[in-house]
Amino acid sequence: MQFQLTTEFIEQIEQLISIKDGNALRELLHDLHFADIADILEELTSDEATYLIKLLETEITSEALMEVDDDVREKILDRLSPKEIAAELEEMDTDDAVDVIAELDEEIQEQVIDEIDDEEHAADIVELLNYDEDTAGALMAKELVRVKETWTIAGCVREMRRQAKNVTRVHSIYVTNKEGKLTGRLSLKDLLTASEKAHISDVFIPKVDYVTVHTENEEVARIMQKYDLEAIPVVDEEGILVGRITIDDIVDFIKEEAEKDYQMAAGISQDVEADDSIWQLTRARLPWLVLGLFGGLGAVYVMKGFDEALAKYVELFFFTPLIAAMAGNVGVQSSAIIVQGLANDNVKGSLFQRLVKEVGLALINGVALGLLVIAFGFFVGQERLVSVTIAVSMLSVIIVAALIGTFVPIILDKRGIDPAIATGPFITTSNDIFGIFLFFYISHLILDF
Amino acid sequence: MQFQLTTEFIEQIEQLISIKDGNALRELLHDLHFADIADILEELTSDEATYLIKLLETEITSEALMEVDDDVREKILDRLSPKEIAAELEEMDTDDAVDVIAELDEEIQEQVIDEIDDEEHAADIVELLNYDEDTAGALMAKELVRVKETWTIAGCVREMRRQAKNVTRVHSIYVTNKEGKLTGRLSLKDLLTASEKAHISDVFIPKVDYVTVHTENEEVARIMQKYDLEAIPVVDEEGILVGRITIDDIVDFIKEEAEKDYQMAAGISQDVEADDSIWQLTRARLPWLVLGLFGGLGAVYVMKGFDEALAKYVELFFFTPLIAAMAGNVGVQSSAIIVQGLANDNVKGSLFQRLVKEVGLALINGVALGLLVIAFGFFVGQERLVSVTIAVSMLSVIIVAALIGTFVPIILDKRGIDPAIATGPFITTSNDIFGIFLFFYISHLILDF
Repeated sequence: MQFQLTTEFIEQIEQLISIKDGNALRELLHDLHFADIADILEELTSDEATYLIKLLETEITSEALMEVDDDVREKILDRLSPKEIAAELEEMDTDDAVDVIAELDEEIQEQVIDEIDDEEHAADIVELLNYDEDTAGALMAKELVRVKETWTIAGCVREMRRQAKNVTRVHSIYVTNKEGKLTGRLSLKDLLTASEKAHISDVFIPKVDYVTVHTENEEVARIMQKYDLEAIPVVDEEGILVGRITIDDIVDFIKEEAEKDYQMAAGISQDVEADDSIWQLTRARLPWLVLGLFGGLGAVYVMKGFDEALAKYVELFFFTPLIAAMAGNVGVQSSAIIVQGLANDNVKGSLFQRLVKEVGLALINGVALGLLVIAFGFFVGQERLVSVTIAVSMLSVIIVAALIGTFVPIILDKRGIDPAIATGPFITTSNDIFGIFLFFYISHLILDF
Repeated sequence: MQFQLTTEFIEQIEQLISIKDGNALRELLHDLHFADIADILEELTSDEATYLIKLLETEITSEALMEVDDDVREKILDRLSPKEIAAELEEMDTDDAVDVIAELDEEIQEQVIDEIDDEEHAADIVELLNYDEDTAGALMAKELVRVKETWTIAGCVREMRRQAKNVTRVHSIYVTNKEGKLTGRLSLKDLLTASEKAHISDVFIPKVDYVTVHTENEEVARIMQKYDLEAIPVVDEEGILVGRITIDDIVDFIKEEAEKDYQMAAGISQDVEADDSIWQLTRARLPWLVLGLFGGLGAVYVMKGFDEALAKYVELFFFTPLIAAMAGNVGVQSSAIIVQGLANDNVKGSLFQRLVKEVGLALINGVALGLLVIAFGFFVGQERLVSVTIAVSMLSVIIVAALIGTFVPIILDKRGIDPAIATGPFITTSNDIFGIFLFFYISHLILDF
């Protein structure tokens, strides 16, 4: 059932674009879903893609433009006039139109808005542009179906027929009082099953979840997930219904957040993709590597400080990568679990309980790994005291690494900083230096070099 | 507007449960959303939670039971009789009921199914239990609104009123032919705006996205996201409409997959949470630490093999944690980007292009970092040749680490293995050993020790 994009098909399109055979192209692409048109746009050059955008119905191209990668859209919009951009925006829901227009230069933004024929649509877009990014105000769409408490079901259906033409998807019908304040909702199911003569006030559900225009996206996502909502109404400071947020925007938000955390843990800042330019990838990756480098140079210093051990216990130096790896791995494991727990709001109990648990866990892991190190020492004929020293120091390193990995994210979170930055290179680097210092210091105490 | 769960409220509930004051509890919890009841259940002991489940309406408790953590649900179900479990399942949609029943022992499963009064509901549950986990068949619900092509809009509305009572949310109305084969869909919007006398066959949309019962969950999620669907119908081998999947199940699936990948990158196998037992956490974490330990012991061996360098170039040994950290960080960065790219299907172009790009990126990063190492050597008065040697070896290590990080996931993916296992400890461990070997080998060539 799914459309499969083939190289031959793309070549055929490119061929038709080169001879500017608009009719054949319209015919060829006639039946395709906008998401598939978006896939095609991504395979073409910017000029070819712009040709298609100008050629096809704005009903399709406006949706396809929303689906393509930001970079691709930017290049296409650069090639369109303000009037042409305005024509695309007319077809979009206000929330999508705002996302697109926000990417343009301010000067062009004004020109585009002036070119939008539908004045209400233009005013809605301007309103949405004024909300803070990351808040419900910027995420919501103005399109929704609203009815008044005092109407009858029959009148409501008539009015809804009128409104529904402008709303892509009807999820819930929101009920307001005379002043426009949100007072409840009506499910389509209720509407279908109620008597035609009943009044809205008799059948509507006065309990309705909502957010305000200032609610942060993260909180909106949490509420919609917790209460399994597919749409949520948005009100202003006075409780007036001003918009609604649908689950598809939240799905995108959840995915982006998960990807950001994942990249942070992997030591990649900024939102990059495999197909971005070398320069973008360098900017996202080099800073973390420099951090790692400073950590490594710190470790060089630490080891220079313990160089008296070289003469008698050179094995210790061979074990430093192992110690660094253990400190890093344990730290990342601990911090990842805590960061995920904080995000899902399931880190419960007191800090002391958590401390006992982390130390207990580190002891079990550390003793198991320590025994393996002693066994290894036995097989390679290492001096027994040295093997035991390495095992004991490693155990201490593992305990300290687990504590750092656990409590740094918790402390950051309490201070209102995103705990996700404490995963990946940040935790491995600090644990590397600290672990190597602790390793040599404890070895120094036991072996007395 | 949101309900805030306080310690005092929980204490009040515990108090009322201890004196078995059912009426006061019902009064107190009367107005709460099931998701809030679920939060309360998680704060109580299993016996207290079971008391509440038995006390409150199954309409609420069945939904709350779906929301609580698996562990909590398991403990509560252990304390309920098959008849009591059946009563909860009666209230659930079939897809949720199947999720719950699948967690029980097979013997209890049969007893519970026997106790379900609604025979059609029981038969639907048994049908769904037979599909492979991870496929659309196991994910779908049987509840949906279906109409026949030949009906009029008015007849359709009548029939829908009847069907809608059993369907929690009406997304789309699916249209079938006489044999029950899916032939299209009708949006509620179309239904609202069509004339009452029209026939379904005049107004329905014959193009409808669907999946089969055997489609894998990952593919279902991909299609629903790509085409922005809030529900998708499921058909069997003959094209007969048998169920539908809604976006809330897909939201859960996307979140779980993202968390799994994140945990994999952090060296945590299995699905664990911060609040799991020490034993569960050990099982999820220790295997990766043992892998890291073997890597570290491998590095010990490598360094023993280059111990002639100790006399003349002991600094090289001080730099091993730095080299290991660089190899690890670069490897994780490269693999994370590729793993994410593969998941989002945006790794394009030939392997050769990717190779050129990765080498270019590694060169830029490696040269920048190498210059820093040389500057460091200058400040600490290190022999210039040694500094340059370290910088050059590090550059080679970075290039190789980037290539391993990029191509191991690609190769795994081509062989049908989840590339996510190639992130985290797996890539850092192999890159540690390989990096340290390469570092000493190149230093050996340059410095000739």
